[in-house]
Amino acid sequence: MSQAKSYAALSATTPLAPFSFERRSLREDDVNIDILYCGVCHSDIHTAESDWGPSNYPIVPGHEIVGKVTEIGSKVSKYKVGDVVGVGCMVDSCQHCSHCSADLEQYCDNNPVGTYGAHDLIDGTLTYGGYSDHIVVREKFVLSIPEALDASKAAPLLCAGVTTFSPLRHYGVKAGDKIGILGMGGLGHMGVKLAKALGAEVTIFTRSENKIAEAKKQGADHVVVSTDDTQMQAVAMNFDFLLDTIPVQHDLNPYLNCLKVDGVHILVGLIEPMDPTVHAANLVLKRRILTGSLIGGIAETQEVLDFCAEHNIECDAEMINIQDINEAYKRMKKGDVKYRFIIDMKSLKNS
Amino acid sequence: MSQAKSYAALSATTPLAPFSFERRSLREDDVNIDILYCGVCHSDIHTAESDWGPSNYPIVPGHEIVGKVTEIGSKVSKYKVGDVVGVGCMVDSCQHCSHCSADLEQYCDNNPVGTYGAHDLIDGTLTYGGYSDHIVVREKFVLSIPEALDASKAAPLLCAGVTTFSPLRHYGVKAGDKIGILGMGGLGHMGVKLAKALGAEVTIFTRSENKIAEAKKQGADHVVVSTDDTQMQAVAMNFDFLLDTIPVQHDLNPYLNCLKVDGVHILVGLIEPMDPTVHAANLVLKRRILTGSLIGGIAETQEVLDFCAEHNIECDAEMINIQDINEAYKRMKKGDVKYRFIIDMKSLKNS
Ligand SMILES: [Zn+2]
Ligand SMILES: [Zn+2]
Ligand SMILES: [Zn+2]
Ligand SMILES: [Zn+2]
Repeated sequence: MSQAKSYAALSATTPLAPFSFERRSLREDDVNIDILYCGVCHSDIHTAESDWGPSNYPIVPGHEIVGKVTEIGSKVSKYKVGDVVGVGCMVDSCQHCSHCSADLEQYCDNNPVGTYGAHDLIDGTLTYGGYSDHIVVREKFVLSIPEALDASKAAPLLCAGVTTFSPLRHYGVKAGDKIGILGMGGLGHMGVKLAKALGAEVTIFTRSENKIAEAKKQGADHVVVSTDDTQMQAVAMNFDFLLDTIPVQHDLNPYLNCLKVDGVHILVGLIEPMDPTVHAANLVLKRRILTGSLIGGIAETQEVLDFCAEHNIECDAEMINIQDINEAYKRMKKGDVKYRFIIDMKSLKNS
Repeated sequence: MSQAKSYAALSATTPLAPFSFERRSLREDDVNIDILYCGVCHSDIHTAESDWGPSNYPIVPGHEIVGKVTEIGSKVSKYKVGDVVGVGCMVDSCQHCSHCSADLEQYCDNNPVGTYGAHDLIDGTLTYGGYSDHIVVREKFVLSIPEALDASKAAPLLCAGVTTFSPLRHYGVKAGDKIGILGMGGLGHMGVKLAKALGAEVTIFTRSENKIAEAKKQGADHVVVSTDDTQMQAVAMNFDFLLDTIPVQHDLNPYLNCLKVDGVHILVGLIEPMDPTVHAANLVLKRRILTGSLIGGIAETQEVLDFCAEHNIECDAEMINIQDINEAYKRMKKGDVKYRFIIDMKSLKNS
């Protein structure tokens, strides 16, 4: 066992604050990682604040983790001390169900073990995430950070990156396809970069005229102001795909209307429930698909890291100290971040 | 021009009654068909009663038409006098859009011409359907009724048949797949027969214990009473496909929960709007697909006719006289038909 420093939420209503806990001793297939950087995901806030049902406190958030291997278990073969590695949203899964066998650990029949707020499959202890100085993770759930990636900007690829990459790959987005990206936050801006790199023609939908310049800067080929009916009508029946990263309830119907026959609307946010409700006619009359996608499997997470290294893609991020995390949460709730906060975990040494 | 006898609705609130009108003279690519049988579809009622917005009266319903060719235009090559043929939900489409080119006339960018209540593309006259003694239709939209089919039972294949067949084919339902059929009406019972013939393992979902025996008789391998939570939980994560033929608003969420990861819920009814609303989590957390499907193209309609001939599939139907049509509508509204009414159009001669 080793003592870990961290920032934790002790309840749904208290701000994150310094917190010490024990990390388990290394098992034979474990890797110990000194955490260098940790991205800040909206899920961190939702879990810290029990937005999705009561969380298992204390919650040490953080599932976009980049660090350096400092110790390996006796049977670890994939990593050695000094390697720069990553950990995403999962730290284990049953490893024997059909989905685990198909590299779809995120859909594990027995539920994957979340990086924080979940229970370890072997000893039942609570998992603690990346707002901490080190983490012990089963080798199988550790990713390799390619050298070509700037380690200080790679963290968000482990959740925001793979969450947008996975459906683009699964549904076969390819050169020439027309895709609309809904929402311009952490997920949306990764979606734009990844879809562009896959060769698609990318349109950003934004609610505000004021964001047009920013959307173009993100690399969008076109921008549609979704509150402008004329603009929405002009792109009716126009898209092969819509990647919907909007994190709040919104009316899907005007967007569905922008899809071609057989077009696919992909939800990556949990908007519960859909309100207003969807009109069946928008699906039936044009054989459109409404679907969703959850993060990505471990192999796919490695794939997005390698893909971003190859295509020179990085997340636009603002580096913060851990002491600023509560302020960062406040700003994220207002949408005031371009486009991800990354915590420089060196700062934790001073807390 | 030729005088036609028919039954028509003159307004949303008047019962169907005898009605005479002119059919157009044959164009060079037209076929004239003496109507022998016409199936009665729920759409007939919805259109006669303006349930989907104001209809173009007079409405002569009927888009499940089987008859005999009595005359052909000068350039007709596919049919000859005496052939037994069918006409389904469409009698024309633009023929030049990408969907028409892909045998997906039902999704024609310029809208297909409905068999009744629509406007002819050439002269703008109102189309009149199959509750009539004869019909003039462009050869391209006329189907061949295989000899192996009983012509007196083939009519419902032209709408109910292709509506269920098209999504099964499009989504690749195959031997060994597990499919649930929701609803036991005209569409549902065809869905069961077609899915069985494709080799799938078929479960009928019904709201009532009383329908279990009937569902088994329909050929279902299993029956689930959807109002029984224990039975619904027992089939959670169990199905590759759900074919949802329920014609009224219903809660999709408990059904979605029965789909595997990547499972597909196919709506063929217009339940407007979806109420209660769908929970995004049911899609996102298991990458499930919610989609819809609209009738089928002309080539696919021929395919389902040939498929049913080959697999010895026919619609369970009750033959009626045209004079009984208003009573039949009443019974259909109560779900009191196994499973389709077919009008013996000989009866029209007596009206
Ligand atoms: Zn995340
Ligand atoms: Zn598993
Ligand atoms: Zn019909
Ligand atoms: Zn067309």
